[in-house]
Amino acid sequence: MSEYSSLSDTQKKALLSDLSAQYRDFQSRGLQLDMSRGKPGTDQLDLSLDILDCINSSESCKAGDGTDCRSYGLLDGIPEAKQLFAQLLGVTPEEIIIGGNSSLNMMYDAVARAMMFGVLGGDKPWCRLDSVKFLCPVPGYDRHFKITERFGIDMINVDMTDEGPDMDEVRRYVENDDSVKGIWCVPKYSNPQGITYSDAVVDAFASLKPAAPDFRIFWDDAYCVHDLYEEHDHLKNILSACRAHGSENMVFIFGSTSKISFPGSGVAMMAASKANIDFTKTQLCPQTIGPDKLNQLRHVRFFKDIDGIHAHMAKHAELLRPKFETVLSCFDRELRGTGTLDWTSPRGGYFISVNTLDGCAKRTVQLCAEAGVKLTEAGATFPYGFDPRDRNIRIAPTYPTVAELSQAVELFSLCVRIAALEKLLSKGRVKFHSAGSFLKAACL
Amino acid sequence: MSEYSSLSDTQKKALLSDLSAQYRDFQSRGLQLDMSRGKPGTDQLDLSLDILDCINSSESCKAGDGTDCRSYGLLDGIPEAKQLFAQLLGVTPEEIIIGGNSSLNMMYDAVARAMMFGVLGGDKPWCRLDSVKFLCPVPGYDRHFKITERFGIDMINVDMTDEGPDMDEVRRYVENDDSVKGIWCVPKYSNPQGITYSDAVVDAFASLKPAAPDFRIFWDDAYCVHDLYEEHDHLKNILSACRAHGSENMVFIFGSTSKISFPGSGVAMMAASKANIDFTKTQLCPQTIGPDKLNQLRHVRFFKDIDGIHAHMAKHAELLRPKFETVLSCFDRELRGTGTLDWTSPRGGYFISVNTLDGCAKRTVQLCAEAGVKLTEAGATFPYGFDPRDRNIRIAPTYPTVAELSQAVELFSLCVRIAALEKLLSKGRVKFHSAGSFLKAACL
Repeated sequence: MSEYSSLSDTQKKALLSDLSAQYRDFQSRGLQLDMSRGKPGTDQLDLSLDILDCINSSESCKAGDGTDCRSYGLLDGIPEAKQLFAQLLGVTPEEIIIGGNSSLNMMYDAVARAMMFGVLGGDKPWCRLDSVKFLCPVPGYDRHFKITERFGIDMINVDMTDEGPDMDEVRRYVENDDSVKGIWCVPKYSNPQGITYSDAVVDAFASLKPAAPDFRIFWDDAYCVHDLYEEHDHLKNILSACRAHGSENMVFIFGSTSKISFPGSGVAMMAASKANIDFTKTQLCPQTIGPDKLNQLRHVRFFKDIDGIHAHMAKHAELLRPKFETVLSCFDRELRGTGTLDWTSPRGGYFISVNTLDGCAKRTVQLCAEAGVKLTEAGATFPYGFDPRDRNIRIAPTYPTVAELSQAVELFSLCVRIAALEKLLSKGRVKFHSAGSFLKAACL
Repeated sequence: MSEYSSLSDTQKKALLSDLSAQYRDFQSRGLQLDMSRGKPGTDQLDLSLDILDCINSSESCKAGDGTDCRSYGLLDGIPEAKQLFAQLLGVTPEEIIIGGNSSLNMMYDAVARAMMFGVLGGDKPWCRLDSVKFLCPVPGYDRHFKITERFGIDMINVDMTDEGPDMDEVRRYVENDDSVKGIWCVPKYSNPQGITYSDAVVDAFASLKPAAPDFRIFWDDAYCVHDLYEEHDHLKNILSACRAHGSENMVFIFGSTSKISFPGSGVAMMAASKANIDFTKTQLCPQTIGPDKLNQLRHVRFFKDIDGIHAHMAKHAELLRPKFETVLSCFDRELRGTGTLDWTSPRGGYFISVNTLDGCAKRTVQLCAEAGVKLTEAGATFPYGFDPRDRNIRIAPTYPTVAELSQAVELFSLCVRIAALEKLLSKGRVKFHSAGSFLKAACL
């Protein structure tokens, strides 16, 4: 296929007319597909059904230390859950707190406590400062950005490279501006690119010398065991790396079983240095009596140990690989050489990130929607919902069936090309949207 | 029995010597009982065992609206849980949010959001004000007080009468001081007295004309269906009462199944006017994707409807009545007429509240502890852990067996009398503790 930009206007128009006919054909099919969120498919949920049967008698409600999980207590989780999930995140049981069903909620809470009460080593709550800033590697996870936006924290875009955030940029901000208090990271199979941070990037994080004594890395290890292939990415242990640099209090790690067991009924966790965890537990004390312990126990009974989790993830991979490959092979077939789309080819995680021509993402998403396929909103992968180049789209291939996905991604490829041709024919009349409208659209 | 205060010193000394011998006998028995918290007994937990078996197939994970409860979504709960628990709290499904397992956490979150972002009708977050005050009917629930203490909110003691808080006092504060932003209430079978607010008190709340436009009543209806007898207390519906007075945005209602199903794995809820609920949902949006929906579904499947909950609560009452009666009959037998203890006789809830002679609560709790029975710390029922008269103790009779409880309460009655005699013999040398030491002991 030829680069679309090198075609004559006449060729572009002819091609656009042809593609538009195909598009109308798609519209007539009455598709109704939602690819907007990274939801596991129903077949994936069925993999964990036995988790529901693990506890069914008075005796089976007892944790290893004799605690009746039906009753009150154990603010930071049951011992066997700490044991298991500490291994998941590469920490020790005294370096972890097991929470409820949502790691996002634990991240929100961690930011909220930092704002209201401060973190270990800080001399005041963040809300008492004139300015609080977070670095946001972009494109990134919209719900991270929503949290910091909610608290009025200024978000600064940092470019992603193929091996993680641009660490020169990160270092420049973190080491020179003491109002920079945090950075959002999805270090393994990043949302949305599927990039795993290289050892050099992890070491660069660990060796940061922040201007703020209470700077924290929010390390959302959401996809720690979410490999698609046996030959998979390896993420260097951030807490060990920090320890080697004497910076072990600089990182908060988060994880959950949302995409291991059930998104609506999983177990979430926060890990950090023992000093951070002890400090956090005193902060948690007035907040709750404790999380749902029966659900923690169910998870431990079902997975048994870390090998059980890995074996279980291999089953997820079986179901997910064909979906990722459906998307990538369609891109390869329909778009390679056209110069209308760049895409990532992740070896794990839940997303594929694509860049259209500048100024084509919103139009592409709109075209898909008008033919019945709902994608993640264009711009969602940037703070304030504002992608300055209007080019990034997050593809979430996990929820539809392979058959549905085939149609959806074929439509998507068509829409990418239509939007590109429209843009090229408009001779670069690029309209940038202001951030204002996105701010209004965001929660409150 | 004669009033101890009317005995001669010689009689007091002889009696104290006799009681001390009995006390030493108790010490030699090696008791080890924890009556410090309002925990259901194991037999009560077993009443809800079938809740663990309600969901066991892919199909059974579907909510009534087709939502797969294993997956993401439904920030405010599944429709059938809203339906059921709205009935529990006397509101409509659009006036409720179903949360995770902890109503305390929902209360903490509600206070935290008010501090950080403000409530409907307020012109700024509470944390931007020079002073924020809460009224605290005393004695009350220690964990309520811990929340407001955590946020640096000034707590003002308000006396309880037999039918609820002293509403003249409440009105005076609320209607004249716009820094008074809230009041903590446990309106039915109050913690610790077991008092149910009278209709007149509920109406007095509803007709308040707060100086602060963003004043909120935190109405913790923790014991809404926790009756011990068929002939039970009735609490007037606060939201309806408020609506009649045009003040329906003034109240936040909280409830949970912690003492209906499982404290460690129940379902919590927050109810309020639709305007408040809609406002709260926009605030919740960045906080979490949603609570554990499978556990909500389990609860609805198990209880079926509100009649199912009432029938279930009758079984709890069967198990709890003998415990409350064991305590009360022992008090009646051992203490009536001695003038050493006043107590309440609740018809529901989880606690009995007692007042010793002034200055005797700490000593009584200490004596019990030294003979192996752990009670709720004296002072815990007051803000900052400071009971100005050192006389209130919360008795939690639910967790021990009747046999254990018999021994424990006999010991307690003995300790009450010993502490009283010591106090009377010390000829009124009353030492008041300062609030300082309690502040230090409290979480952070």
